[in-house]
Formats: sequence, structure tokens, C-alpha cells
Amino acid sequence: MTSIDINCDMGEGFGVYTLGDDPAMLEIVTSANIACGFHAGDPLVMAATLAAAKRNGVGVGAHPSFLDLWGFGRRPIMGERPADMEKHIIYQIGALQALAHADGQKLQHVKTHGSLGNIANEDAELADAVARAIRAVDRDLIFIAMPGLEMERAGLAAGLRVVSEVYADRAYADNGNLVSRKLPGAVIHDAEAAATRVLRMVEDGEIITASGGRLKVRPETVCVHGDTHGAVEMARTIRDRLSGAGLKLLPFGETLD
Amino acid sequence: MTSIDINCDMGEGFGVYTLGDDPAMLEIVTSANIACGFHAGDPLVMAATLAAAKRNGVGVGAHPSFLDLWGFGRRPIMGERPADMEKHIIYQIGALQALAHADGQKLQHVKTHGSLGNIANEDAELADAVARAIRAVDRDLIFIAMPGLEMERAGLAAGLRVVSEVYADRAYADNGNLVSRKLPGAVIHDAEAAATRVLRMVEDGEIITASGGRLKVRPETVCVHGDTHGAVEMARTIRDRLSGAGLKLLPFGETLD
Amino acid sequence: MTSIDINCDMGEGFGVYTLGDDPAMLEIVTSANIACGFHAGDPLVMAATLAAAKRNGVGVGAHPSFLDLWGFGRRPIMGERPADMEKHIIYQIGALQALAHADGQKLQHVKTHGSLGNIANEDAELADAVARAIRAVDRDLIFIAMPGLEMERAGLAAGLRVVSEVYADRAYADNGNLVSRKLPGAVIHDAEAAATRVLRMVEDGEIITASGGRLKVRPETVCVHGDTHGAVEMARTIRDRLSGAGLKLLPFGETLD
Amino acid sequence: MTSIDINCDMGEGFGVYTLGDDPAMLEIVTSANIACGFHAGDPLVMAATLAAAKRNGVGVGAHPSFLDLWGFGRRPIMGERPADMEKHIIYQIGALQALAHADGQKLQHVKTHGSLGNIANEDAELADAVARAIRAVDRDLIFIAMPGLEMERAGLAAGLRVVSEVYADRAYADNGNLVSRKLPGAVIHDAEAAATRVLRMVEDGEIITASGGRLKVRPETVCVHGDTHGAVEMARTIRDRLSGAGLKLLPFGETLD
Repeated sequence: MTSIDINCDMGEGFGVYTLGDDPAMLEIVTSANIACGFHAGDPLVMAATLAAAKRNGVGVGAHPSFLDLWGFGRRPIMGERPADMEKHIIYQIGALQALAHADGQKLQHVKTHGSLGNIANEDAELADAVARAIRAVDRDLIFIAMPGLEMERAGLAAGLRVVSEVYADRAYADNGNLVSRKLPGAVIHDAEAAATRVLRMVEDGEIITASGGRLKVRPETVCVHGDTHGAVEMARTIRDRLSGAGLKLLPFGETLD
Repeated sequence: MTSIDINCDMGEGFGVYTLGDDPAMLEIVTSANIACGFHAGDPLVMAATLAAAKRNGVGVGAHPSFLDLWGFGRRPIMGERPADMEKHIIYQIGALQALAHADGQKLQHVKTHGSLGNIANEDAELADAVARAIRAVDRDLIFIAMPGLEMERAGLAAGLRVVSEVYADRAYADNGNLVSRKLPGAVIHDAEAAATRVLRMVEDGEIITASGGRLKVRPETVCVHGDTHGAVEMARTIRDRLSGAGLKLLPFGETLD
Repeated sequence: MTSIDINCDMGEGFGVYTLGDDPAMLEIVTSANIACGFHAGDPLVMAATLAAAKRNGVGVGAHPSFLDLWGFGRRPIMGERPADMEKHIIYQIGALQALAHADGQKLQHVKTHGSLGNIANEDAELADAVARAIRAVDRDLIFIAMPGLEMERAGLAAGLRVVSEVYADRAYADNGNLVSRKLPGAVIHDAEAAATRVLRMVEDGEIITASGGRLKVRPETVCVHGDTHGAVEMARTIRDRLSGAGLKLLPFGETLD
Repeated sequence: MTSIDINCDMGEGFGVYTLGDDPAMLEIVTSANIACGFHAGDPLVMAATLAAAKRNGVGVGAHPSFLDLWGFGRRPIMGERPADMEKHIIYQIGALQALAHADGQKLQHVKTHGSLGNIANEDAELADAVARAIRAVDRDLIFIAMPGLEMERAGLAAGLRVVSEVYADRAYADNGNLVSRKLPGAVIHDAEAAATRVLRMVEDGEIITASGGRLKVRPETVCVHGDTHGAVEMARTIRDRLSGAGLKLLPFGETLD
């Protein structure tokens, strides 16, 4: 492995509201997951984020969510029918795709947001619906998924190119899912610790879980966050450490063949 | 002229709500203007409407609007910046386009909804933004516009194919715009009267305005409404009269070359 | 027992949308649960529903819900913090209360809507939050609750007057909750069967559960639905049968002391 | 005059979003105009803002708006019927009133937000609807209005207590309305200049308009902004200058008899 991607959620403002420091993060990351209006984002924010990503050479992707602006897509809405969510996801990708096309860009990828992702990673039918939605819009869209969980399986089964993702600042459970934010130690706040952790995942192909177990991984993209205290510094530290280890920072869409 | 199109707004439900009798109207009209979630419509309604239109051989188009669910896109929201509305329209067309693509369909056209259309027909900059938005998504999309007003001009200037539209049940002002619904006589409620009126427009190429003036027109599509009392009967009467006069009822997308 | 109340959800339109036949139902029922804008309803619908209820001598109450217009408050949104939902419910009751006050009316009651009610009936902390919210707005508000479940307990513990409710058209589980709509036999569609069933609950103080068990009840209000096929006829049949059995139909607020 | 009030818009977050530095502003101002969910604000933000205002001894009021979250209530929505807006305003005041009541507080005042206020200040019928709405909720609510415009007239005609407001950082037209933000010089960015200007209004009872004219005023509250660059410093400067001139800073609700 000679290159790696760093992805971050972006364009999460709405109307007068802004969230996170997108301009700073766009100088650090190589792929942007752009909100599509269901948990955050609106056509103006989306278009501005697409344009800013382009100026920074950052790959752009859709970040679809449950329809839940007030809850920012984080509320676990149970019982959504997979066939219905398929339509919701197609709608969101299509909206961003058209804005990208109007700006002379092509979407690189799709990554699910918040509760939609959390639930789909353990619900095979919902995971299949996500994969079907992506494929229905464009078979060439790359699907960011966590290794070993339902969405990775669904994406591969649907014939999509799946990119394997690790989280820089989150503790892992033994099944490969993230430890709930509500539990102690779930979030890593120290930038150097997170960077060291990421390097081990990337170089050794191993995640040390919260219980001390080991998960084999081959990370192709590292997720960092842009909306928390110290986010920019942590992201920069991680980028510098990856770069210092000889890895080239590139959008995964440019390195996959 | 040997063929004519009849268009109608459709898919204007939202969540549990429905509006109009889409199944009945889909047996009568030849083109459907599908709401895209800003004044009405949601991904499920949009997908279901696309599928039903396909079963009936009806051409499908996007019906973008101001962002105004509560006001159903009918509130005159002044001062929207044209460049902003361009993004709003691209978003809406893109969302429907992706759902159509997922269903193996291609969008035939775009027609603006409610206040967006009313304002753009008299505001050159907003009209140009609408045309730019359509062209940015797909240059082959046909633009439904009323003859003699700003959107027709903008569409032609942008190099779009523009289809000339007349209204079956509305009185016309001398400038070619519709008489405000708030004025007496603005809406024609008698099905036979509306059908006779349409026939004159189509066969004689003439609209008699509310003041008795004459406007030259070459209608390629006739707009009927699906959500008013007696709507289905009026639409059927108009179709029968057009058909009885030897005109073939076809989506305009099939007859334009 | 010489009197009984019939309650129905009302005012569930939004903007241009309407749902159910409120005018017909207001001639049948004695209490109206009015949507407050979170799952349905808007200030105009609320005010119009209050005015219509007043003309019909129908008691008015707030029908608060999760914030979920698209899902009509039926999506099970898990993990809402009770203290947060307390504020959501206060907001909704307060909004309706002010509109009632402006119309010279006083709210009679509160009844939760959809998933909020379903979840709170089995979640003690959420049930307590609902009761606290009602009490915080006005201690004299009567709380409609199903017998034997968490909201009844919470209401009594909070010192509220609780009115015991039975459903005319729904099958019961042995724990006193409703059988999920998704299961066969969960909804009773025959008006006479529903009326007979209600009469047994009211006269014999007994519900026969889906498994054949018996639950003791002392119903003070019977819930009927206004938005389903045949709803008006079923409601009228139930009212006639209750009336024919010598029971006086009155809003419970007029008979409680 | 021995006392003066400073008011500021507050509680303009929504869900995950925040706007302005409310904690800092609450240490400076004496009255808070709290968003009610239509242009900003949600039940949690409203409750938290009420509680924070109480801790700071700040008077609380409702800040109703057009229903327009995306446009932050700033879009000029024309043609709203006064009777409809009356219901919208009652709803919003009622929602905040109930949350205040639950927190042991009483609302001090009402001030309209954004476009609703701009339009009502020049539209007599809409201004009357605003005044009717306030009176319908509680005749004791104080109405903040700009001197010489329609809302002041309507408030007095409705028998409301009206408090006269001046703006610290805005240029005035000769009719007493604010100069549009779009025009050069409309907004004063220098804190000392704004403070000097306010002092002249308060001590000399005079506003110098953009054209050099003079308007007689007797300001009882000074509006400052919390969401612009340098807002906190400007507000503090104005407070210090007013205080330094011997004026006591107090919520107007405590000084009116």
C-alpha cells in the first residue's frame, strides 16, 4: 500500500446555520461526504461544498440519511421498510449528482450517515437496500463501508466497488462495529493517540478492540470528524503521520482501477 | 398539427397525505409533472408516480418549486436570488431523474410549479436561472412554457427545446399571462366550455383574452388540473373533444424530433 | 355508569392537505384529539378544528406526537430522552391551549399520538415525562390513557385525572396493549362487530383479548378512528348502540367532578 | 428617564445547530426575544434559553415569525392573509408561554421577527393581526414596536402596552423604518459609533436619519444583535455607555406600571 484516503463529513449546514470548519478540513482530507438535505445540507450548501472540494482536489460523495433534520439523522428510527429507504437514498444521491454534474464534477462515492448506517450495518435487508440504491443511480459509485459488517457484504454482493474504512477516533467492539458513543472510552480525544492508532491499522492491518482483541483490516480510507472540538488539529496530525510514514494522500477514486 | 399533449401536475402527496386522483388522471393525460419534494411529493410518492406513469405510457417530467411545503409552493416568496433558485431546481430535477433512471425511465420535461413559475414568467433573471438549471442537468430535457412570457424566451435563449402550453380552465390577460385566481371569471368550471375553448386554441391558434383581445398561439400541450372538483370529468371531456377533432393524444416527447 | 364519551383524532390536515372526514365525525364523537403540528396539523387547521368542535359541543384536547411530519408520528423513534420529550409535549399543548383560549375555549384533555403513545405505554420514564408535561401546562387537564399500562400509572402518580380508554376496532394483547396492526386480526373492520365489542367492554367491564383472556376495564371513553374506510359508518353504529343501551353521550370533562 | 432596556434575539438554534453567543449576550441585555420554532428554535432550545434568561434576570418574550425555517424568517413572503398569520402568531406565543409557565416564568413581551415585522410595519391589516394575536393570548403581554410605524399604531389601538424600540446599529429612513440592509451604510459596524448614536436617541430623544432628518423618539428599549461579527463587544460598549450616563439597565417589564 502506497496511498491512503482520509474522508470527512461535510456540507452539514442548513439555511443560515453552519456546522464544522469545512474550509480547514478541505485542506486536510482527500474525500468529502456531502450531506444531501435529509439530515443536513440544502442545495446552496451542497453546491458550495462541491465547488470548494473541487478547488481542493477532494473527491466528492453523497452522504444520505434518514429524513430527520431536527435529529440530524442520529435518531434511531426503527422499522423503516428497506424498499422505502432505497427510494430515499436514490433521491439524495440523485440530487447531489445533478449538482455535481452542473459543476462539471462526477460523484466518487456514497457513504451512509448516522443512524441509517448504524442500523444498516447490522440489518441485512436494509444494507441490501442501500447497495441497490447506489447501484441504481450509478454502478461506478464507490461504496465506503466498514469491514466485516452488513453493508460491506451487501455492497460486494451487489457488484459495487467497496472501500474499506476505519475510524480514527473511535473504539471498536469485537464484532467490528463502533462502541456506542454513550460508553466510556468510546471516543478518543487525543490527537497523537488517534494518529498512532490509525498508523497501526494502516501499516499492521490490525485494529485493537476495546476488549483487547484483534481485527484484521486493510484500510483504504480513514474517517475523521470535522465538527468536534479539536477536530481540525486531530485531522492534521493524522494526515501528517500518514504522510510521514511514506503514504501518499489521495482520493481513493484516483487509485482504484 | 396532428397530435397534441395533455399535461397535469401529479404526485402531490406527502407521507400519509394524498392529493388529486392520479390513477384516473393518468388514463387521460399524456404527460405528468411530478412534484419533487419541495412543495409536495416525497421519494416514495415520486417513485410510485413514475411507475404508474410508465404503466400508462405517460411522459414524465420534474415539477420544481420554491421550498415551501406548508404553502404548497403557492406563496409568493420574493427576493430569492436567481443563482440560489438555480441550485434548488437542479436539486429537484436531479432527485427525480435518479428515481426515473432507477426505474428504467428517462425524464421527458421540466415545468415550474406555482409561485416559482408565476414570478419567473415576469422576471427575466429568474427565468434565465430556471433555464440554466434545466440545461445544467440535461440539455435534452424539454421545457414547458407559456407562449410570450419570460420563461419561453429564457428557454429558447438557453438552447432548450420549449413546448408551448395553454391552460384549459383559466382566463388570460392581454399580456399572455393567466388572470389571477382571485379575480372573478379567472377559472372556468364548465367542462364543455373549457373543451370548446381549448379546441379553438388548438385549431384556430388563438386565445380570446378576458378583455376580448386575441393572442396567437401554437399549443403543443394543454394543461389540465387534477386536484379540483370535477377535474377528472373536465380532463376527460377535453381529451374526448381533442380526440374527436382528429388529434392524436401523445406525449410531446414522442412527437418532437 | 350512565354516560360515556367517544373520542377521535382530528385536525390531521397540513397546509393544502386534509385527512379524514372531520365534519362528519364531529357530529358523532364527544371529544376531539387535535394534532398540534408535530405529526400533522398547523395553526390554521388547529383553529378551524377548535371552532368546529365548539359548534358541535365536542370537548377538545391536545394530541402531541414525536416531531415527525413525514412519518405522521408513526415511526418508532427510539432513544428520545424523556426530559426532551417533556419539552416537546409542553410546546404542543401550549400552542393548542393558546389557540383554544383565543377562541374562548379551555382544553379538556391530552392524549398522546402514535409511536409516542405506543412507546410511552411500555416505557415508565417516558410515561412519567408525558405526565409531567401535562401537569406543567395545567393540572386540570385530563389525561386519556389505556388501563393497566405505564401512562395510566404515570398519570395517576402525577396527580392527574386519568380517563380510561378502550379501542373500538382493535384486538388486545393479554397485557392490555393493542395487538400490532401488522398482525392478522389486529383491526376490526365490521361496524356491528366493533359496536357489539364496545358494548361488552362498557356494560360488562371486560375486554376479550386475542388469545381469549379477559381484562377488567371501566371504560370512560371509546376511541374511534376517522381516517379509515368506513370510519364514519362504524363510529355512527357504535354511537347508536351505546345510545340505544341507555348511555348518554357526553364529553368526559362534563361528567367528571 | 432613569432606566432603559436592551433587547436581543436569542434561542435561534435548531437541533444540532447553534447561532450567536447567547451566554455572553445574556450577561449584557435585559430582555430576550426567543425564537418559537417557525424561523429557528425548537422546544429544547426554547426551554434552555428560558432557563438561562432566568438565571441572568433577563425578561423573556416571544419572537414569532413566518413559517420558514430554511429562510430563517427573512424571506419576504407576500400575500399571507392577516387572519392566518394571527393563528400562526398565537401558536408560537402559546408554545413559548407554556414552556415559560413550566419553568415558573411569565412572558414579558412579544416582538415580531424578520420579514413578518418588516411587512407588518407597513401593512396596517397585518399589523392589526399581530396585535390581535398578542391580545388573544394575554392582554398583559408588552408589545415591542418601532415608533411611528403600523405595529405601534395597531398595538395601541388594541389596548396593548407598547414599548418603543430603537436600533443601535442600523441607519433610519425618514419614515422611521430601517434602511434596507442591501444599501450602503445601512449597518453600523463601529461599536463606539453605535453607542454614541444610541445615547443621542435616548438622551436627546432624536434619531438622525440617513438623509440628515430628525425623528422624535422616546426609546424604552434598544435592540442589539447577537449573531454578527463583533456583536458581543458592540452590545457591551452600548451597555457601558448607557450605564455610564446614569441609566439603570432593567427589563422594561419591571419599570412599566
